Amino acid sequence: VPQTIAFISMSLDGFAAGPDISQQHPLGRNGEILHEWLFAEKGEDDPDARVVDSIFARIGAVVIGNVMFSIGWKEWGEQNPFPVPVWVLAHAQRESIAPESTNPVHFVSDLTTALALSRAQAGDKDLLIGGGPTTIDQVITAGELDEIIVTVAPVLLGNGTRLFASVDADVTRLEPVGETSSVRVTHLHYRFPDRHSGPSA
Amino acid sequence: VPQTIAFISMSLDGFAAGPDISQQHPLGRNGEILHEWLFAEKGEDDPDARVVDSIFARIGAVVIGNVMFSIGWKEWGEQNPFPVPVWVLAHAQRESIAPESTNPVHFVSDLTTALALSRAQAGDKDLLIGGGPTTIDQVITAGELDEIIVTVAPVLLGNGTRLFASVDADVTRLEPVGETSSVRVTHLHYRFPDRHSGPSA
Repeated sequence: VPQTIAFISMSLDGFAAGPDISQQHPLGRNGEILHEWLFAEKGEDDPDARVVDSIFARIGAVVIGNVMFSIGWKEWGEQNPFPVPVWVLAHAQRESIAPESTNPVHFVSDLTTALALSRAQAGDKDLLIGGGPTTIDQVITAGELDEIIVTVAPVLLGNGTRLFASVDADVTRLEPVGETSSVRVTHLHYRFPDRHSGPSA
Repeated sequence: VPQTIAFISMSLDGFAAGPDISQQHPLGRNGEILHEWLFAEKGEDDPDARVVDSIFARIGAVVIGNVMFSIGWKEWGEQNPFPVPVWVLAHAQRESIAPESTNPVHFVSDLTTALALSRAQAGDKDLLIGGGPTTIDQVITAGELDEIIVTVAPVLLGNGTRLFASVDADVTRLEPVGETSSVRVTHLHYRFPDRHSGPSA
């Protein structure tokens, strides 16, 4: 059964972005520290590269939020940074970008449609919820997330956007799947055992 | 050089206690989930037991906050649960408990005195900051913490007392020391490289 998986970097004090997000500071003040591990020079068989590669190998589509898209688009050189089609949760209707390519960007206005279309596209492969934190929270609240990999960066940001802050649940037990550590970060991998609705596709 | 180390359990969403702390729910609602790993039946050479044993082996004294003491005292059968002397940060003056024993409980009104007396007691051994979260935050803000081991429990509590919430700093980079995982939890171990004041003893 194809899985829906989220992958995101978080500070040890729980922030997935720093405060004061802007074009100049797309991840908020000091937020770029969260992603240093991703851009670090890596040797052969690097644990961090292995985690990213294993996720990219299993996914057939991606859903991201509009904030992540709007802030990221210039950073990404105005190209989809994923090797597969992306659906953006955007309120405004908008034409698809590069619809004939292998990795187009589509825009939809609601999560249900985004999940249905992206899962249909992914087929036997998994769906990645690429962020940001609010979008991941929304998918958890909808009971549509199967797994999450949280990459804990060695920093206390003190302020910003907290991952899980808008999850609407009293308490959610997770099932540890395993972890991978490098000299830079620790990737914590969990399953949501209480997923209360199956894929809609 | 003796180190000052904190050790505390935290939910994946950053809480070291659940909401509505009371005598009935000493760790807040659902907060006991954070400590299930500690009380779980363990086999030979259990990773969690190894972490606890290694901390207990290196410490010569403990400092805890008054909330932790007040809430914990009955739970602990009115005995110091640590194998070494404890200093409690209490506002009210109070006689020491079991002063002639190997693990008495002392009460002091300020952090500086607590650190000086407990470090003098610990001698060549390390000092443990046993919690709760607010006390650990206070020691971090004072620039007096060298290391922290955060035990991440596989649960989203949604609410409660956030570890690091009251740390007074814009951003604090940590140095990963390593991690230990069991089937239950992951213990993340970090150093504070920017400690701005040495031991006062």
